[in-house]
Amino acid sequence: MAARREFTRESLAAGVRAGDRRALARAITLVENSEPLAYEVVKELYPETGHAYAVGITGPPGVGKSTLIGALVRHVREGDRSVGVISVDPSSPFSKGALLGDRIRLSDHFLDPEVFIRSMGTRGHQGGLSEATLQALLVLDAAGKDLVFLETVGAGQGEVEVITIADTVVLVLMPGSGDSIQALKAGIMEIPDVIAINKMDHPAAKTMLNEVRSVLSLDKESAWRPPIVLTEASRGENVPELWAKIEEHRAFLGEEGRLEEQRRRNLAGEVFAVASARAKSHLEEAVAEDPELRRLLDEVQQRQLDPLSAVREIMRKVFKVGG
Amino acid sequence: MAARREFTRESLAAGVRAGDRRALARAITLVENSEPLAYEVVKELYPETGHAYAVGITGPPGVGKSTLIGALVRHVREGDRSVGVISVDPSSPFSKGALLGDRIRLSDHFLDPEVFIRSMGTRGHQGGLSEATLQALLVLDAAGKDLVFLETVGAGQGEVEVITIADTVVLVLMPGSGDSIQALKAGIMEIPDVIAINKMDHPAAKTMLNEVRSVLSLDKESAWRPPIVLTEASRGENVPELWAKIEEHRAFLGEEGRLEEQRRRNLAGEVFAVASARAKSHLEEAVAEDPELRRLLDEVQQRQLDPLSAVREIMRKVFKVGG
Repeated sequence: MAARREFTRESLAAGVRAGDRRALARAITLVENSEPLAYEVVKELYPETGHAYAVGITGPPGVGKSTLIGALVRHVREGDRSVGVISVDPSSPFSKGALLGDRIRLSDHFLDPEVFIRSMGTRGHQGGLSEATLQALLVLDAAGKDLVFLETVGAGQGEVEVITIADTVVLVLMPGSGDSIQALKAGIMEIPDVIAINKMDHPAAKTMLNEVRSVLSLDKESAWRPPIVLTEASRGENVPELWAKIEEHRAFLGEEGRLEEQRRRNLAGEVFAVASARAKSHLEEAVAEDPELRRLLDEVQQRQLDPLSAVREIMRKVFKVGG
Repeated sequence: MAARREFTRESLAAGVRAGDRRALARAITLVENSEPLAYEVVKELYPETGHAYAVGITGPPGVGKSTLIGALVRHVREGDRSVGVISVDPSSPFSKGALLGDRIRLSDHFLDPEVFIRSMGTRGHQGGLSEATLQALLVLDAAGKDLVFLETVGAGQGEVEVITIADTVVLVLMPGSGDSIQALKAGIMEIPDVIAINKMDHPAAKTMLNEVRSVLSLDKESAWRPPIVLTEASRGENVPELWAKIEEHRAFLGEEGRLEEQRRRNLAGEVFAVASARAKSHLEEAVAEDPELRRLLDEVQQRQLDPLSAVREIMRKVFKVGG
């Protein structure tokens, strides 16, 4: 084996453009580690992006999101489209390296040069998960992927921000997803674009379908009514139907400039999410390094200084802004 | 009726200290609206706080958290302790004004001068929900409440930060809470201090109990093993048992300086949460007011400027910090 050659900005950008797997893997690792080279490469590639369509697959752990993504990838590959998958779900089999298990036959995809699958760590990103996911999506977009699937567990503010990068959001539930139904009903969880009820063979699948229908019927205003598809991801059942609904939503967004408007809003939201995550990291670092700022926290603990006064003082010292 | 007299800093602080209901209501409204007077009053009262014990009641919507809080309040009032309740769950009956319904007999508590119940809006706080909840808790603490219950829906980063103010966290589930069990199992949801399985009359309650037990058995390291209590909040059944477990956890924290250490960590976490929420608000306001910053977002949308470069530029201009 030849000595490992490090990528330069030029060679890495060229490799990503060409869809070279090694370049893609390297670029996303650099993105995960917030390396300056990743920033430089994405900056260079950004004007060439915007062609990939991003489908978010979200839902509680254990409902079969990864299996469903595997089945969707198989389906769209029949149509010859190139695909990227980014998983930011720490409980995903993708993240646990369980890709080659017999339940999820993604091994075929691994040999397919037009499919690139990558899981991302969910911790330690200076600009939060949003930053790393956004940058990874841009890398796959620049590599010419037609479709990028984004798997998230869909709980926690950080992941809500992740999923807003997606053009179409699919919520996956299964019989027993009572808490999610309650959260949808209570308006705590945002209504997705498409709903898949997986594990359709379960005797309670019909009950779940009726519950989801009844929740969705509460909204009579929206121009888009989220379709519900019963699937059995492990057998690929109804996966073409699910894909057809995703395509319908894509066509809907294509009308009246909706996609462009939504992307404008989402990109602005991402910029704020990344900036505030960076602001938080910056604050924490500043406090860790500055004994005077740490002393403020001690005073809060000792009930000598109230928390908001400490916040004001920290903001003033670190960001030069008044409370 | 006499003309409404506005509180001054002195009269409001004195009213809160005396536990006057009108002063408490006013102080928390001012806290919700981030009024300077609220800041001044909490600042003055802060050295007198730290005596109230905060119990977080979290869990998905519909499991009966509010009913359980009602039952717990009734139970602890028999022991003559004064109580505050803060609900930051938008789906809570407390928030919907459904307090006097026959299911939740909290009307008695409303006439009880030693019980103060308040729901908080979940939007529009400059320093986020964490700030408003923390300040409201401090107000009730300064008013001499022995116990403060904090109701949150326990999904979404913002609410995770809210619940970290609590000394003891009780997770409420019910038969059908499959998504929460999966989230606990996957390590996505933090293990609480006490678990209540409400609606114990449901035929699937035992199954849920076994599932929760099996998840908890995975952790063999922790010094505290979270007890599980089956409850029927609407009849007050097993509520004394649940309260006993909360007291046991409190006693556990009382040993080896654990409570002090936990509060130190939690207060520091709150300070960072509030500061970063404020940083985000500050960024959004700055961009809204400054056409030059808004132009950066347009350039991102037009793929002329990559998102991270826009973030850097915004951070540099607003906070005077380098990327």
